[in-house]
Order: sequence, then structure tokens, then C-alpha cells
Amino acid sequence: MRKTPKEGKDLTDLPTTPLLDRVSSPSDLKGLSDAELTELAGEVRQEMIGAVSQTGGHLGAGLGVVELTVALHAVFDTPRDRLVWDVSHQCYPHKILTGRRDRMTTLRQKDGLSGFCKRKESEYDAFGAGHSSTSISAALGFAVSRELGSAPEAGVGDAIAIIGDGALTGGMAFEALNHAGHLGTRVIVILNDNEMSIAPPVGAMSRYLNRLYAGAPFQEFKSLAKGAVRHLPSPLQEGAKRAKDLIKHVTVGGTLFEELGFSYVGPIDGHDMDQLLTILRTVKTRATGPMLLHVITQKGKGYAPAEAAADRCHGVSKFDIVTGEQKKSPANAPSYTKVFANALIAEAKADRKVVAITAAMPDGTGLNLFAERFPERCFDVGIAEQHGVTFAAGLAAGGQKPFVAIYSTFLQRGYDQIVHDVAIQRLPVRFAIDRAGLVGADGATHAGAYDVAFLANLPGFVVMAAADESELMHMVATAAAHDEGPIAFRFPRGEGVGVDLPDRGVPLEIGKGRMIQEGARVALLNFGARLKEVKEAAQMLAAKGITPTIADARFAKPLDEELILRLARDHEALITVEEGAVGGFGSHVAHLLAEKGVFDTGVKYRSMVLPDIFIDQANPADMYAVAGMNAPDIEAKVLDVLGEADAAARRA
Amino acid sequence: MRKTPKEGKDLTDLPTTPLLDRVSSPSDLKGLSDAELTELAGEVRQEMIGAVSQTGGHLGAGLGVVELTVALHAVFDTPRDRLVWDVSHQCYPHKILTGRRDRMTTLRQKDGLSGFCKRKESEYDAFGAGHSSTSISAALGFAVSRELGSAPEAGVGDAIAIIGDGALTGGMAFEALNHAGHLGTRVIVILNDNEMSIAPPVGAMSRYLNRLYAGAPFQEFKSLAKGAVRHLPSPLQEGAKRAKDLIKHVTVGGTLFEELGFSYVGPIDGHDMDQLLTILRTVKTRATGPMLLHVITQKGKGYAPAEAAADRCHGVSKFDIVTGEQKKSPANAPSYTKVFANALIAEAKADRKVVAITAAMPDGTGLNLFAERFPERCFDVGIAEQHGVTFAAGLAAGGQKPFVAIYSTFLQRGYDQIVHDVAIQRLPVRFAIDRAGLVGADGATHAGAYDVAFLANLPGFVVMAAADESELMHMVATAAAHDEGPIAFRFPRGEGVGVDLPDRGVPLEIGKGRMIQEGARVALLNFGARLKEVKEAAQMLAAKGITPTIADARFAKPLDEELILRLARDHEALITVEEGAVGGFGSHVAHLLAEKGVFDTGVKYRSMVLPDIFIDQANPADMYAVAGMNAPDIEAKVLDVLGEADAAARRA
Repeated sequence: MRKTPKEGKDLTDLPTTPLLDRVSSPSDLKGLSDAELTELAGEVRQEMIGAVSQTGGHLGAGLGVVELTVALHAVFDTPRDRLVWDVSHQCYPHKILTGRRDRMTTLRQKDGLSGFCKRKESEYDAFGAGHSSTSISAALGFAVSRELGSAPEAGVGDAIAIIGDGALTGGMAFEALNHAGHLGTRVIVILNDNEMSIAPPVGAMSRYLNRLYAGAPFQEFKSLAKGAVRHLPSPLQEGAKRAKDLIKHVTVGGTLFEELGFSYVGPIDGHDMDQLLTILRTVKTRATGPMLLHVITQKGKGYAPAEAAADRCHGVSKFDIVTGEQKKSPANAPSYTKVFANALIAEAKADRKVVAITAAMPDGTGLNLFAERFPERCFDVGIAEQHGVTFAAGLAAGGQKPFVAIYSTFLQRGYDQIVHDVAIQRLPVRFAIDRAGLVGADGATHAGAYDVAFLANLPGFVVMAAADESELMHMVATAAAHDEGPIAFRFPRGEGVGVDLPDRGVPLEIGKGRMIQEGARVALLNFGARLKEVKEAAQMLAAKGITPTIADARFAKPLDEELILRLARDHEALITVEEGAVGGFGSHVAHLLAEKGVFDTGVKYRSMVLPDIFIDQANPADMYAVAGMNAPDIEAKVLDVLGEADAAARRA
Repeated sequence: MRKTPKEGKDLTDLPTTPLLDRVSSPSDLKGLSDAELTELAGEVRQEMIGAVSQTGGHLGAGLGVVELTVALHAVFDTPRDRLVWDVSHQCYPHKILTGRRDRMTTLRQKDGLSGFCKRKESEYDAFGAGHSSTSISAALGFAVSRELGSAPEAGVGDAIAIIGDGALTGGMAFEALNHAGHLGTRVIVILNDNEMSIAPPVGAMSRYLNRLYAGAPFQEFKSLAKGAVRHLPSPLQEGAKRAKDLIKHVTVGGTLFEELGFSYVGPIDGHDMDQLLTILRTVKTRATGPMLLHVITQKGKGYAPAEAAADRCHGVSKFDIVTGEQKKSPANAPSYTKVFANALIAEAKADRKVVAITAAMPDGTGLNLFAERFPERCFDVGIAEQHGVTFAAGLAAGGQKPFVAIYSTFLQRGYDQIVHDVAIQRLPVRFAIDRAGLVGADGATHAGAYDVAFLANLPGFVVMAAADESELMHMVATAAAHDEGPIAFRFPRGEGVGVDLPDRGVPLEIGKGRMIQEGARVALLNFGARLKEVKEAAQMLAAKGITPTIADARFAKPLDEELILRLARDHEALITVEEGAVGGFGSHVAHLLAEKGVFDTGVKYRSMVLPDIFIDQANPADMYAVAGMNAPDIEAKVLDVLGEADAAARRA
């Protein structure tokens, strides 16, 4: 049923969606003819473009799988059959078809729909995602659970992973293929081959898939399939049988997958509903073991501005539907990412040993700028953080100065390699950790909460956090100059605070913090980009007669012991502030204070860290409000610790 | 030069090693004829068997690569050419040839040679290892560094990864192949295919390699190669040219690797020195891009007891050379591993949803016992911790009760999957974390130091540590009963402490610790298997008139807040003890004490954690002595905190 449009919206602007209006859940697709399903796909596409134009979000990926999504829900019995969307950037059409159409304009907003699949949001979201290459593993888990038969109440039918060609470069996807091929369990992997994920793909696998595609242009198959469907009365079984013969006929490649124990079907045209329905019905009826269906799609399909864009409108702001023009808010300051990139370029100009590594995120990390300037010194390893880290360790052992630029949350993928290949060998690999702290619309899967905790207890590591974009420049320079072992610096998503920038960063003294403001009674010891909030809190406190001391630690490892001990001894209270979970900077400070006996005689110590919850998407400021880490929260903490909360309340 | 044998050893027992006695470094191999190299391999084999019979260690893997190791050092110019041994279980022959022969009987002992490659031990150890599947990434790093030409002082020549077929199931090896194939840089990967790593291999890749082998039995090639080498005068270039034609002729498979951009050569007989030398010389002369050389070897080759053993003597105790009989010390108590396995079997008998997952370590984790009893409910996913964790998450989402049994140090490989697929979705995956804490002879790469820190700050996780083997049984039962979210329990390597065991574990109350002993002045709050040392320390203190309170926390998350606050308030001092790095249990306790204001008025808090160093191999007790975590260290800490150290010294 068509839901009431937003108040004030001109109805005549809305696309007409007669078929979609009849779909409140996937079961409603069962009553539609194949021709109607084709039409429905068009309506879903329009609906999605309309929604994302109002919210921003991941546009290109969803546009590429509209037909595939409709066909999957039409052929399979969701939610009993489990669809596992890899990364799930592409899940918007799926959300539209699974009872969430009326909330699509709340996408990626506080209290709205997640931009990803999320189990707690819908029974149709069989498995959540946000990171890449997990879908085959999860689908195999469902499939094996079904075969075990010991949990019939879970009602698991088919298990279907939908994974992009980019995600297939991630090693865990290969691990899962290898295991699935070994088990021989019926599990369906749909390779959504759009020849790009976020950035154009790299790797030999990509070339291989191209060869498969070149070997069997699906145009030929398209006409065959259409013929088969069109010219014969087709009870399902019959159609399936014919399609199976067809598949045999047109399958010309896929050796690699077959060698891993999969039946390979394809490539087929992912925008041809007839082909999709025919093949999927056959797969559903006939598959016995692991099956890989190779579907060629076009990212951004069916929306001219997306088809024309270099990134196929992977991620967009709100935009004008007609022109595709995005409404980006004017920047007040350069982004941390861009400051990092420019600082790294400056270091690379001065030292030809500086090289850079990204794991399929050249744009997100700013390394696209580095690659323009130094193409031969920039390495995109694919969605392969594990390899990326150890490759960098090899480069360091070979005499280079590698900078590994990976988001905090994705760096978790390379954790063992950081411990085993970098830290234990004390190799001078530099880690540029973007998206530290809470990131906004991408929500919990992308929060950079754990890096300080998982790095700062590794012997020999240096761990820094930038309080502003000028600090970031100094930290890039510090990392470039530091050859004694591994070093990491973290910085948040988004704009800097607008401080003046030097021409080039100046290496910092390792393990030395800096005083920001001398005060009394309470010392606020900052680590990272909450410094702005700390300063604001200090201003609020000044109005109440309290002038806190403020220091910026710069280093979580090694700690500036002299500074920290002095702050603890000269103040009634010491409060650390960091954009990370417990176990990180504050825990190291507490350990120092404990071992030095500072607690023995009493000091009011508090550690402000991210709370023990996964925080759903919102804008970063709102997420930090949930976390209790904005300026008012810091102010309240100070008043509480000093026993001034009541007095302040009385004055207020 | 033959080194002086150990005093008291009967010289007549020693194998004669006339050629090996002339080899003090790989450059000495250049003067040996091919026939002499063959003989040398036999001497290296005898030398290695003799050394390991005295030390214990990894025997089978090294025996399998004796000829390959001799051939590599004879053909390539090490250390300029970088040999990167994957995992490096197989590096003993390499150590014998690279100036460490005289220290082989110190293998895996305190202040002796590491059982693995280690950069700080020798310039011939280009890249250290201990974990699997890293070698191609590292070798590619060296190769790219060479090509960049910006660090000539590093003097990087060829880069050669030697990787087993088991290690090839690890996703990062695939990531590295994919990247290397993309770059096209000259890098040499030697696939040491012995059809087993630690356990028989699983996975479709293994079947694929078998097919390659079956397709081209190397016996045929063997005679060809021998003919080529034998019947012609062979200046190197000439020989190489012929070998190249030969390779073309006999290469019949390898499509999978070729599709990833590698030239594939093989399979060849890894125990035929003529074949190895011929092919390696050709590879060295002719390789332009990435090349994979498929070598078939036999783990345990040339030592009858190893060839006959099911595990090919993967890891052995000291043994009798003639009989192969290992000298195992009698056990005082069942191992934690075995107690875990039996406890899990008991739970699985009671609940058919209990399933188990291992990442290629069925014996090490005890799951071989589980698999005997419940073969269809035990899954060996290969060396694939990433996939294993998410596969378990899928099983949990499908209604099963999966237990993932992985050593602490290897669980680092699945960290992102733990965060992203398990914790964020709050799926009830159970983690059985073996080898928590310091592990002994395997040294720093295998230390289980970080799991508490990287798990206990994940929302919704339950994190336990077993103080003894009876506690472990209760924790297995607790995990089986806990369906609300993820839960982990850690336990150390080796024997339990010998406590009585119940028939079956009883689920513990989540988040509740237990009192061990009521005392005064100081409370020792234990987390994990140091409890024995804590109790010993208490006895030592009792002799000095101090009776500490002892509590066992059982849970690092959720903390038993009531217990901890009571201990802190009722004692002058509170000391936590755990076998993990800072950021774990003690840090969570400190955070609690801080937030509750316990520090405000003074409490002597200390946290005994693993120190900020990587600790080299020794027996565990010696390693804990280095760490300062044995009973005397705990006693000393108490005396120091209570200000009784001087008094105790005076009394002594």
C-alpha cells in the first residue's frame, strides 16, 4: 500500500508506483507475473533514487542490484531462505521490498533505518554487515545449520550470499569458498560482478573475472533465455529443465571456482529480469552442492548521473534528482583526510623511501591524491588488510618507509599481522588510522573505538592521536622520521577545527605531551580530537569560577609520565578524555598512576571513554551525546568530581 | 668446521658429516658439486635428527625440506636473496646451514635459538614467523622494495616465499597471490606441498593440489631431468635453457595459479636434488614476473619413525634416535586442553545443538576427541580463523551453539570478525581460548597476551578465565548455557593443577567471582590460572604474619562490582593478577574503581600484568619469572605495597 508521503511534498513530483504499492512484503511478489516483476524493478529503482536524494547514502551499489533483489525475493522464500548481503551497501532495494519502504527517508539518521543490513531491524536481514567479504562464511553457517537439522525452530531454508567482485579479493571470502567446496553443502553464492566496489578493483582476480566475461558475452545468452521463456508455455519444472540445459550450453568459464568445488553458472546479465528469474528458479530447483552464479551488473544502473560518475555515485549527499547535483555543505576547514594526504605528499617529496598502502580505499583515505603525485609509490592491495599490513612489513624490512592508511575499524582485520609481523619484529611501519572515534551515518560497524586499546599494549609501538589538523601534520612528520619501530597516529572523520596549518609538519618528541592551559583544582588530560570539546567545557567551567588545567597527551604510548604524574599530584582531580573504548589511553594512565603509588594517598581520577554499548547511526555530535563525551558532559564530569555539581545546580 | 660435541657425549654415536663440516655459511655451498650437495642434504638430515632428539621441537616439517633448503642456499645468494619461510616450523635445516649449527642443541630453550625464524637472530632470517600464511605478503614487500630502487643499502635481491599447502588455505596468502599477480613483480613462491601442515589438510584447495599432482606424476619428470643434467656438459646457462624447455613440457596444471597471474612450474620432486637444482637455476635465470614452483615433499622424510607417524612427528619431545620413542615426562594432572575437550563432549551429549569449530588445530585444541564422538558436529575450517569466526556466527544465527576453539594468539586473526559479526550482532558464539598467557618453547609469537584486552571492551561480551581445570569445566558449562550473546573463556597451555574434577561442569552465575580466602590488609584479586601462584605467595606471606584475602574474579566482563568494591574498601591494598597485557582485567577493575570514586580517598591499587616486552622462549615458569608474575614476585609486590619490604628484609 502506498504510504502517505511526507507533508508538504508535492504529490505530482512523486513517481507513480502502482506495483510497488501492492508490495508490503516479499510474499506479495509471488502473485506478480514475470513482466510485472520487470516493471516493479523500475519502480523500486525510482523509489530508491527518491529516498536517497533526500537522505544521502550509498546509491550506486543499490541501483546495480535492483533487478537481482526483486528476482531473489520473487524466487526464494525469504525470510526462511536467508539472503546475506555482503558489506550491504547494496541493501536499499531489499529494504524497500521488505516492509521498510515507509522509513527509507530515515536512512542513516538517528533513530532511523541503518544504512546496512541489521538483524535487529528486520527478520529479512539475516546477517548484518558493514565490512566486506563476510557473506559466504555466514551463508555457509546457515546452510550447515540447516543440514544438521538440530535447530528446526530456526527455520533455515536456503542460504544465499550476494558478494561483489571487490569483496571477493578479501581473503576470508576465499577461505569460505575453500571450506564450502570441501563440505559440499548446498549453498548459493551470487557473484555481483560490477567491476568495482568503492574504487576500481585491483588484483589478478579482477582480471580473471574480466576474462570470464569476455569469454561469454551474455548478449548471446540473453536472447536464448528470453527465447526459452517467451516461446513456451512454462510450468516451472519444465522451464527449469530447459534453463538447466541452457546453463550447460552457455557456461564457458569459471574454472577457478570449479576447481574450488563450486558449480559455476554464468556470466548472466543482472539487469535482465527474464534471465535472472529463469536461472534463479533453476538454481533453486536443482542445486545440490555449492553453486556460484556469476551476475554482471552495472553500478549506478538506470540513473544517468550515477552511470556517468567516476565512482558510480558510491556514496552521495542529498542530491537533486534531475541533475544529480549533490548538496554538499560548504566546508569550514579542510578534512583530516585531506590534511593527512597533503602532509604525506610533503614527506614523500623529501624522502623517496616514503611509500603508501591502501586496502581498496584510495579516495576514503586520501591516498588518491598521493597516487596522483607518486603513482609508483602507492599500493592499493585490494580489500586485503591482512596482506596490506604484512606487505608493508616486508617493505619496511626492505628499507622503505611504508605508511599504511586504513580506517580504525578496518584495521581490526590486520590485527594479528600488526602483532606478529610488525610489532614482534619491531619493523618501522607507519599506521595512519583514519575514522578514529564515532563516525556518524555509517553507525556501529564503522566506529573506530578499539585501535588504541589493541595497539598501545604492544611492546615497542608508538601510538599518537591528533587533537587537530595541525597536530596531524606534525604526527605525519613524526612518523616519517621514526625509524626505530612501528608508529601509529589516529584522527577522526570529517573536518578539522580550522587551525592554521604549517607548510610542513615538524617531528614531535616521542612520548612528550603539551600543556594547553594552566589552571587549578582539576586537570583535563586529552588524547585525540575531543580537545575542542575539552576547551569548550573549560569555557563553561570558567563561568562557574573553575579554571581547569588542560593538557594534550599526544601519545598513549609511550606515556609522558612526568607530565601525567605532575598533573595528578598538582590537582584534586585528573580526568582523561579519549574517543576510544576502555583499555586504551585512560587505562594506560591508570596503570601508571597505580604503579607509581599515586592512588595510595588519594586522587580523584576519572577516565572518559566510549561507553560499553554499540551506538547506532546519527550525526557524530549526536552519537557523542549518546556516548556522553561532548563539552556539557565533560563539564558535568568535572563538577561532579569536584563536588560542585550541587552548587552549580543551585546557581543555575 | 665440526664443532666440539657436548661433553660426555660418546663420539662414536655421532654421524659423520664430512661435507657439513666444511659449511660454515651458505657461501660454502657454492664450491660443492651437485652430487656433493645431495650428500650434504643427507648429513643435514642426520644433524637435524640428532639435534632435535636432544631438544624436542618441530621435526617433521624440517625433514621434509632438507633437499629444498640445501638447493635454495646453493642456487640463490642468501642473505642478499631473501628466503621467507612460512610459519617457519621447517627452518631447522636452514639454521644448520646459516651459521647456527653449533647452537642447534639450544633450540627452543631459554637464551637459545628460537624454534622459528627471527630477524634479530640471524641476517639469514629475512622475516620472522610463527603464524601461518604471511610469507607471500612479506616476500612481495621485499620484491617491490627492490624494484623501487630507493633503498639500495638494504641490498634486496630475489624474494622467495616457501609456503606449505596448509598455509595456502589462509586467506591472506590468497590476498597476496592476488596482489602479486596484479603487480607482475618478479617474486618466487615455492609451494611446499606435503599434503599436511599440522593436521591433514582440509579444503577444496587441497583436493585441487592433489589433482595437479595426480595429473603429472613427477617420476616421469624426474628421469627426464636427471637425463638432462647427467648426459650433457652443463654450463649453467645451457642447463637452464634445457630445463626451461623441460618445464614447458611437463607443466600440466596450475591453472588456478596461472589465472591469478603466476607462472606455474611443477609439480616436481622435492627430494630429488638434481630436479631441484635444475629448476631453481632456471627460475633464478629466467623468472620475470610472479612464479609459483610446486614442489612435492614428504613431511618426516628420511627418518623412519617420522615417516610412520600419523602426524609425521610434527612436534616432538626429546626422543631416542634409534627407536623414535619420545621421552615424555609423566603427567601430574590432565591437560587443560583435554579437560576442555571432555567437558565439551559432555555438553554436546546433553545438547545436540553444540557444535565445534577448529582452524586446522584439531589435536592442539582437543577437538580431535570431540570429532571422534561427534564427527558431523565438528568443523575444521583450515588455517582460516577469519572464516571460522564468521562461519560460527552464521551457525549461531541458524540456531546452533558453536564453540570456536582457537589459541589466544591465533584468535587475533579473527578479531574483526569477532567485533563485526559476533559482538555487534550479539550472537551467542562461544570462544574457547587455549594457550592463554605465556606458552613456553614457542616463545613470543605464540604468547596469549592480548585476548582479554581485545575482548573485554566489546559490548555484550562475557569474558572468563579459568583458575584451574575444574573451573574450566564450569566455564564450558556456563558457555553452553549462555544464549544471550557471545562468551569467551581462556585457559593456559599445559597441565592442570590436579584438583578433583566433577562429572560435569555446573553453569556459573554470570559476573560473579568467588572468595578463596578471607584475610586482612591486602586483597589479591586473581583472574585466571595464576591462582596457584597467588596461593603460594599467600603461604609465603603467612610466614611473615600477613594473611591476604584471596578472591578469584572468574569474569573480566561483566565485573563482579560488588565483590571488587568490597575488597577495595575493606583492605589497605588491592592487587589484581592476570596472565595478560595491560588493557585487560586490571584495567577494567581500575576503570570501575575510578568511576565509583574509590581512588578519591586513597586505596593502594596495583595491577600485575604481563610486562611491556616480548618474552623469548623458555619454559613457562622461567618466562613468568622474566614477567615478574611468579609467587615470589606476588609476595614481593604485597610487601612493597604494604610498606613491609624493609621489615621483611630485616627479618630475613
